[in-house]
Amino acid sequence: MAIELYELCGANEALLFSPSVWRSRMALMHKELDYTSVPCRFTEKDKIAFSGQKLLPILKDGDTVVSDSWKIAEYLEEAYPDRPTLFAGPGGKAGIVFFRGFVDTVYGLCAPLAVLPVWSAIGPEDQEYFRETREARLGKSLEDVCGDLQERIEALRSGLSMFRKMLASQPFAGGDAPLYSDHMLFGTLNWVRTVGDYTLFESDDPVNAWMERMLDAYGGHARSAATIRDIA
Amino acid sequence: MAIELYELCGANEALLFSPSVWRSRMALMHKELDYTSVPCRFTEKDKIAFSGQKLLPILKDGDTVVSDSWKIAEYLEEAYPDRPTLFAGPGGKAGIVFFRGFVDTVYGLCAPLAVLPVWSAIGPEDQEYFRETREARLGKSLEDVCGDLQERIEALRSGLSMFRKMLASQPFAGGDAPLYSDHMLFGTLNWVRTVGDYTLFESDDPVNAWMERMLDAYGGHARSAATIRDIA
Repeated sequence: MAIELYELCGANEALLFSPSVWRSRMALMHKELDYTSVPCRFTEKDKIAFSGQKLLPILKDGDTVVSDSWKIAEYLEEAYPDRPTLFAGPGGKAGIVFFRGFVDTVYGLCAPLAVLPVWSAIGPEDQEYFRETREARLGKSLEDVCGDLQERIEALRSGLSMFRKMLASQPFAGGDAPLYSDHMLFGTLNWVRTVGDYTLFESDDPVNAWMERMLDAYGGHARSAATIRDIA
Repeated sequence: MAIELYELCGANEALLFSPSVWRSRMALMHKELDYTSVPCRFTEKDKIAFSGQKLLPILKDGDTVVSDSWKIAEYLEEAYPDRPTLFAGPGGKAGIVFFRGFVDTVYGLCAPLAVLPVWSAIGPEDQEYFRETREARLGKSLEDVCGDLQERIEALRSGLSMFRKMLASQPFAGGDAPLYSDHMLFGTLNWVRTVGDYTLFESDDPVNAWMERMLDAYGGHARSAATIRDIA
């Protein structure tokens, strides 16, 4: 039975921006697994009621239902041990657990750049839900979250310095090729890239070159996905 | 032929404090390799002239001479593949390369806490050399480097938050047991622990519990080494 990935989408179903969803997408590509995409909007909670929770992504593989991108990666690694590895064994996974904490800090730096563009990219029913939940969480209006755009971009660039340093030694967090560490970071940065019309990185920034490599990976899978620039 | 490790020592030869040396010591213990310690003072450059450079640690294994703690770890991993692994394969090593960048930031937070205590722990000839080279490098007197002690300690604690978060998922950077990532961070923190009479971590801090586990590792090897509190 085919794998289904339930993915968060914008007003236009082709616009997939969720940082967690992108982690799972890249994990499926990495594992060379075919899947059917099931786009869901923020307010289409009925579509995912079967999962017993309200967040995306959700992976459905036959009778197995897994939510939470990290658990999805663990599931794929265990269920498909003969496919390319996401974690490179227990020692590799241990390093990726540490890297996950780093990605959390990058997520925090991306969020102010992403929230208003996400609001703009979703439909009216979703906009109401999104504004209400996010403004309650963030304690300010969506319009006030970003503040000075250039300062936010600089903070993100600076928050990636540890990763940039690593890129002087190897082309991917996974070494010579991506591992799930790369997918976590890529998903997070691709969130802003997909909805925001920003120049996130200077063209000579090693992080930019890594983003390009990730966009090229798996036959250019992520590069071929729609962004706000294709849809606007 | 026995392995020799040339190690930086204090006025008292038993006081081994160098963060890089401790990385190599722990790597040798991890690899279950016997070795002879050759303590060297800062100004005993003649003892290590054979290495063609001036920094410690230096590993001498038969005719092979390796300096630089990272290169020593790589050498040990390659030369002794049947001993417990330091890197857990290429994927594990890739994560450890990223972790090395994190440890560099921790090193930067430890240095202000370590320099004056190191100066106090070394002999008069070394003190002159150390003060001259470090004050030139740091652009201030050794007495001025630390500034507010409690603020420095807080900055170090805060700089370890990403590692602390990881410890909620696993007991070591290497997962269930230490890898070279743990040795890099331990060596760095043990530098301050060895020469400084500080309470670096609260007793209920998970980082403190990890330090205790590292001190207990390999039959309590690091715990049995002399600190300034044993020698003063």
